[in-house]
Amino acid sequence: MTETKTYSLQDILSMDKVPRLNMINAASGFKSACLIGTLSEGGVENLAVFNSVVHIGSNPPLLGFILRPVTVPRHTYQNILETGWYTINHIGESIYKKAHRTSGKYREDISEFEHCGLTPQYTDTCKAPYVLESAIKIGLTFEEEHTVKANGTKLIVGAVRELMLPEEAIEGDGFIDLETAGTLAISGLDSYHKTTRLSREDYVRIPSEKSRPG
Amino acid sequence: MTETKTYSLQDILSMDKVPRLNMINAASGFKSACLIGTLSEGGVENLAVFNSVVHIGSNPPLLGFILRPVTVPRHTYQNILETGWYTINHIGESIYKKAHRTSGKYREDISEFEHCGLTPQYTDTCKAPYVLESAIKIGLTFEEEHTVKANGTKLIVGAVRELMLPEEAIEGDGFIDLETAGTLAISGLDSYHKTTRLSREDYVRIPSEKSRPG
Repeated sequence: MTETKTYSLQDILSMDKVPRLNMINAASGFKSACLIGTLSEGGVENLAVFNSVVHIGSNPPLLGFILRPVTVPRHTYQNILETGWYTINHIGESIYKKAHRTSGKYREDISEFEHCGLTPQYTDTCKAPYVLESAIKIGLTFEEEHTVKANGTKLIVGAVRELMLPEEAIEGDGFIDLETAGTLAISGLDSYHKTTRLSREDYVRIPSEKSRPG
Repeated sequence: MTETKTYSLQDILSMDKVPRLNMINAASGFKSACLIGTLSEGGVENLAVFNSVVHIGSNPPLLGFILRPVTVPRHTYQNILETGWYTINHIGESIYKKAHRTSGKYREDISEFEHCGLTPQYTDTCKAPYVLESAIKIGLTFEEEHTVKANGTKLIVGAVRELMLPEEAIEGDGFIDLETAGTLAISGLDSYHKTTRLSREDYVRIPSEKSRPG
């Protein structure tokens, strides 16, 4: 067995900035690999990689993501507030290198779609651009935001308005097989991973329980 | 190429409950596979599987997780408020079936550690139980909570006080190789996945930029 290394809070605070960023970002486990697409009021498309999309609710369908403090301009955030719309697009193996390049701090008038070689796609429903090359695409409207007092990070909550899925990835019980769709996972800030399913586990029913919770 | 199936909001709202739960939970992409350990004021240990741990900040180190509405008793939440402490423990292949069994709604006086065959572990620092069988363990204190107005779901934010890592998984730049640590990913509500790293991508530097952001 390998040795365990224990870090106290003081040890973590004493680390240099980049190792601390790498370590604490990886400590949260595997994360979603998504591109968030938006459009500014002035018509400039924006695309940015995010690894913090979380499920908030199914009825109504709500998703959240974490946005770093807006002490510097965040085009994704500005555009969401301006237009009320954004898209979440899963990152697959064929586009992850392009997707990661959207993490650069480009000027506001530059479209990351164009700069990184990805294709905007529009539907009648959604006022923000999807990523044509993504297999799974979600169109959302801004619902609410919460600001973490400790450091100014925000939880952005959106309502799902449109969901596009590859038909072959949808299983009989509604589950989406993300491996068939080619979706990747992220760890840390910069590590991209394919996955292999071990199993789907049964719903755990305790004898006294009457019905499945919502 | 496969066909794309498009769901409107109305289509999603018209679905039966379980398919909708499965679909919207999977739509958020891959997620962390963690067990949260707590202790009640009365001394009963609690352990529950969570797939929603997210990075909130590195300096100071903060992690968040999403808690479903507290319209029914949530022992994890009660215990965190009572004691101020909790642990996040990564789920590896050797324990994921036991870990998933903690999702059952057990009575308050039942320890999921005992019921599911996992071992509580204490340190001098942390007042909540870790999972001995987990390779990566994080001890946290409760920092703040935010309640999503749309459905009552909560974001719980905690401050990292202690971090235990397998020494062989720590890379030179602080990054934790979650595959060496054996950490799994979750998709949907019940699907567990191993991962294979494709690559770590370089930090994207734009010519005009002076220094790496925090």
